[in-house]
Amino acid sequence: MKCSIPKGTRDFLPAEMARRNYIFDTIREVFKTFAFEPIETPSLENLSTLMGKYGEEGDKLLFKVLNSGNFMENVDFSQDYHKVAPKICERGLRYDLTVPFARFVVQHRDQLTLPFRRYQLQPVWRADRPQKGRYREFYQCDADMIGSTSLLNELELVQMIDAVFAKLDVAVTVKINNRNVLAGLADHIGAPDKLVDITVAIDKLDKIGLDNVRAELSERGLTNEQISALDPVFALSGSANEKLEQLAALFANNEMGTKGVNELKELFGYIDLVKPKCQVELDLTLARGLNYYTGAIFEVKAQGVSIGSICGGGRYDNLTGIFGMPDISGVGISFGADRIYDVLTELDKFPANLGQPARALFINFGSESLPYAISCAAKLRGENISTLIYPDNAKMKKQMDYANKCHVPFVFFVGENEIAAQTLTVKNMATGEQCTVTINEVVALLKA
Amino acid sequence: MKCSIPKGTRDFLPAEMARRNYIFDTIREVFKTFAFEPIETPSLENLSTLMGKYGEEGDKLLFKVLNSGNFMENVDFSQDYHKVAPKICERGLRYDLTVPFARFVVQHRDQLTLPFRRYQLQPVWRADRPQKGRYREFYQCDADMIGSTSLLNELELVQMIDAVFAKLDVAVTVKINNRNVLAGLADHIGAPDKLVDITVAIDKLDKIGLDNVRAELSERGLTNEQISALDPVFALSGSANEKLEQLAALFANNEMGTKGVNELKELFGYIDLVKPKCQVELDLTLARGLNYYTGAIFEVKAQGVSIGSICGGGRYDNLTGIFGMPDISGVGISFGADRIYDVLTELDKFPANLGQPARALFINFGSESLPYAISCAAKLRGENISTLIYPDNAKMKKQMDYANKCHVPFVFFVGENEIAAQTLTVKNMATGEQCTVTINEVVALLKA
Repeated sequence: MKCSIPKGTRDFLPAEMARRNYIFDTIREVFKTFAFEPIETPSLENLSTLMGKYGEEGDKLLFKVLNSGNFMENVDFSQDYHKVAPKICERGLRYDLTVPFARFVVQHRDQLTLPFRRYQLQPVWRADRPQKGRYREFYQCDADMIGSTSLLNELELVQMIDAVFAKLDVAVTVKINNRNVLAGLADHIGAPDKLVDITVAIDKLDKIGLDNVRAELSERGLTNEQISALDPVFALSGSANEKLEQLAALFANNEMGTKGVNELKELFGYIDLVKPKCQVELDLTLARGLNYYTGAIFEVKAQGVSIGSICGGGRYDNLTGIFGMPDISGVGISFGADRIYDVLTELDKFPANLGQPARALFINFGSESLPYAISCAAKLRGENISTLIYPDNAKMKKQMDYANKCHVPFVFFVGENEIAAQTLTVKNMATGEQCTVTINEVVALLKA
Repeated sequence: MKCSIPKGTRDFLPAEMARRNYIFDTIREVFKTFAFEPIETPSLENLSTLMGKYGEEGDKLLFKVLNSGNFMENVDFSQDYHKVAPKICERGLRYDLTVPFARFVVQHRDQLTLPFRRYQLQPVWRADRPQKGRYREFYQCDADMIGSTSLLNELELVQMIDAVFAKLDVAVTVKINNRNVLAGLADHIGAPDKLVDITVAIDKLDKIGLDNVRAELSERGLTNEQISALDPVFALSGSANEKLEQLAALFANNEMGTKGVNELKELFGYIDLVKPKCQVELDLTLARGLNYYTGAIFEVKAQGVSIGSICGGGRYDNLTGIFGMPDISGVGISFGADRIYDVLTELDKFPANLGQPARALFINFGSESLPYAISCAAKLRGENISTLIYPDNAKMKKQMDYANKCHVPFVFFVGENEIAAQTLTVKNMATGEQCTVTINEVVALLKA
């Protein structure tokens, strides 16, 4: 019988788990120092909660769960499968953590004190075509604050991004934009209805160059005059604050654009105060999540590797509106654990000694000496030192091979002599050194 | 629009998450000190992996996931729904952590060093009828060691149970039995084919009394002679070791029974050595998991509450046989987090101060003093102290109410005077005391 798992899913072996947990623990610790609180939502949501929230393409990518019992009763199977699916499936697997959070806020609003900050680290499922770096089950690590429009929240998200990647020892660039600036831009050139076309085109500036961006804008129906009106934007230069001054002049009579510039000025002013270790840039070409973001937009890339965005987010003014509870503004970020894993691998930034299951292993010399080994091991475990006793009285070579394969740093030999003297003989597997010590000395050594 | 989640599933709010994480963290820490390594398997498994592993009833309780795309193509919908389901669903949600672990071991056998110890804390799904304390999505916390038949493994499971509940401050009784003793008993009375009937009946001794057990045995087809032959078993008395001596005499000519008694003698001998804090009992009426356990059987109950088993496990000699890899013996336990939660609630054993999101909150006095508050907060967060700045310049009463609702123990006021003196005014919310301190004094206070 051949064993396999569904396409696009993964088993995680201990070594991989240790590296993943290193990432999750780092993110979680930072979330906690900023006083975010954990929540969890069910893996299964009613399909009525999920459908229509991710666009037509998203609806197709939802995993649907077959109703229990006789799911066929009263269903007309002569219809198209799109029509049949919702009749035989009432529930689906969550697609992201944002829509369930919106549902959660509405459902539990009486129990939440606003402003409310939550973090959530849970898997999500998408029936995407599996490919390198894209999985059908993957974790999202989200932090959102709702119920306050203060830009202090945006600052704290930047501080959190900075803290996470400082701890992970990865140099990153945080790109920041603001939807109101983009909308102001579209207004400014007299094409407010072309906001998406403009942003899609200028988003490609890095890749295709200015001439091609102009060509694409023309294809997308902008007049030559409108395209020329964008020239001052491409000509912006200097620091974020200098660029914002130039934009402010451009937007002198443009309310939306001025609002965006003022928000960015305030935010960059705060950021200057905290002197982050990461590089923070104003990037007018950043246009992710334009469907739902209404203010700040964030994106993070690691320096020195060509791996896409490893964290992103923004402000949304109407998170819970889809569930009938308007006027709750929120801002949040999501860390992409899988991509961060790839970055740390490529930059060789995982700490050594991750996933060392045992600090100590006691060689098993059989029933005579076992009671002493058991009591010594109990003492070490009581001190929170991960400890193994080789379970069988196997040949010494086999036991030592096992210790090597498991990367156990200290191996203990307790036989007749050690029992008589109430000592332990310990071998440092890295240096090969061997010496005789007391149990208290072992505790001191291994706790260090 | 009414927001709801599927029947039998749950949202976890921060206070509940804090209590759940307290349980998970305690279990995980103990698993680690015994050198168990974490693994994770996908939520979705191929239905061919899951079907037929949990009995007919279990197959019905599997959540099945609809195939993507046109699931209706080439499917005959005139058949019974039992026949149709596997045609339109190739994958299902995992039902427990044991079958996926068996599949994992077979699939990754070349990457695993035996003996191998893994722990796994993940949700499982069952389409059971929801009722009090029974959910359709719930976590299992499993630890298993495979590739060694040594009874040292059984001892370590008892030590782990002891350590977990000592840390949780819950007095528990660990009941131990052995399948070979039960099989020996059936042999002894000349009814080896009635093993299950005998154990089902004597399992009820506590509840229905000896006379009713005898009546049930008779109903189940045992002769009066066979039933009388069980009398010495019901008459066993004394400590585990004394009972085992009496059983040994009874099993003088019974190979299976003697094997079971010897295993139990060795195990109780080890247990005596480590002097557990919990109560450990030999319980011949314990018969859980008789379908798959082949040696030791464990069950744990909390003392002083009438809540069922909170942990259980046993040895199985053929975990991976179902996937074509015979002769891998294993032994494991599973902690029931939901029941442990209920026990801790009923006994009022959750520590105070769980789920306090912030240790410090800075009152927001507006833009003048904000830079100082931001830099003080950054300093505390850098020391891993969870800290909030109230995001808006709201009325003092509103901000203090918020601090109270969030159970923040220390509230900080930094205005003109504090900025001039580079100090902070701090209010201890428990005592109402207020004083002026330096940032270094705050760090020392809050890290303590």
